Amino acid sequence: MSYILDPIGIVHSCFTQKFGIPRQPGLASAATGRLVLLPPYNNPEAVAGLEGVSHLWIEFIFHEGYSGWKPRVKMPRLGGNKSLGVFATRSPNRPNNLGLSVVRLIKVELEPQVCLVLGGVDMLDGTPVVDIKPYLPYADAIENARNDWAAAPPALIRVHFSPEALAQLAVLNDQYPNIAELATQVLSQDPRPSYQDYTSARVYVLRLWDLDLHWRCLAAAAGFVIEVLFCRPVKAD
Amino acid sequence: MSYILDPIGIVHSCFTQKFGIPRQPGLASAATGRLVLLPPYNNPEAVAGLEGVSHLWIEFIFHEGYSGWKPRVKMPRLGGNKSLGVFATRSPNRPNNLGLSVVRLIKVELEPQVCLVLGGVDMLDGTPVVDIKPYLPYADAIENARNDWAAAPPALIRVHFSPEALAQLAVLNDQYPNIAELATQVLSQDPRPSYQDYTSARVYVLRLWDLDLHWRCLAAAAGFVIEVLFCRPVKAD
Repeated sequence: MSYILDPIGIVHSCFTQKFGIPRQPGLASAATGRLVLLPPYNNPEAVAGLEGVSHLWIEFIFHEGYSGWKPRVKMPRLGGNKSLGVFATRSPNRPNNLGLSVVRLIKVELEPQVCLVLGGVDMLDGTPVVDIKPYLPYADAIENARNDWAAAPPALIRVHFSPEALAQLAVLNDQYPNIAELATQVLSQDPRPSYQDYTSARVYVLRLWDLDLHWRCLAAAAGFVIEVLFCRPVKAD
Repeated sequence: MSYILDPIGIVHSCFTQKFGIPRQPGLASAATGRLVLLPPYNNPEAVAGLEGVSHLWIEFIFHEGYSGWKPRVKMPRLGGNKSLGVFATRSPNRPNNLGLSVVRLIKVELEPQVCLVLGGVDMLDGTPVVDIKPYLPYADAIENARNDWAAAPPALIRVHFSPEALAQLAVLNDQYPNIAELATQVLSQDPRPSYQDYTSARVYVLRLWDLDLHWRCLAAAAGFVIEVLFCRPVKAD
């Protein structure tokens, strides 16, 4: 017995590549997205009352580049080679490719299309959504719930910008509101692969919208720091 | 573009009929269920680490007797004829028939089958499960989240048992642990249809496991009270 799910909408988000997407929603509050409803679900009646709700559960499909499920999953946050059963993790490599994120509902738009503006997203641009549910504080916010594997948000790493990057982002701020804040929030999660040699000064690229931010991680007196070197618009192919 | 989901497990719960199922999980903490994993997901490796997790998200299919989605849904709790857009509700009558419940993880069993013992369930017996995810307190428990349509748990109604019911349940307690507590928690949610005439003394039947509890609602000096009259095992057909 199988079940067929149709997308009810598509998320358009700042995360146009997988690299750098925060491990959980809410970790980068400036990460915004637009959930555009698809016919026949783009009926304004279907979103009536959402103005009374501050947060939403988005159930979505991990649609791109996931390699199927495995019983055990390596946990970057637990370091090195520690693994957990897939059902003890939120890993995208899971049966049925179902994702679940709680996001902030910023605005409901009805024109020119029925669309929800979301904050704190961790969904890849183009993600198909299969359900939207209101957050119910009295049922969903569980006091004293315990998760020994992720007891607290990941530690943040310090981020700074080169003079070149600062000048570029100042110019781009009209076109990409809060781009420096967004880049800071995303990079402070330290998106490097966990197996990365911490002494390497390799330059990485984080793509937000259609901007490539080039950055590296340096050892500083106060610990590691991420430095944004410069940014470049993605070349149109 | 559609997505095909396979059940990874089946819930066996005390709720063998839809009537009386609490509107949200956690409202009847004594409501227990067993989530039995199906092949190939019944690999003990896939549940490794769940001992470090107190609560789980269960994503499931509303599989029985739901009448398809509608843009607007009537809200019993809002009284009479008030309706909301389906995406502002947790109504089962929704696109894709996807349900989402957070439950307490009581125990992981590996023998004779891989099975999770759950508390606070609100799933119908036989419910197909499509994913299991750990609750992540730092991401999922959102302080200051707001839902104007369900700001607090439903008000509880007082429940008492007739002498006949008390005597029957005392005898049945070995076979059905906590059955009186479970019946009290479920009935205190007042499962009557909201359009019910409050002066009617109609007798209703709540089925828990394979017991039928006969009850009615009476006006008392302190307000309405539910009285459990007697119980009967379900007749084998």
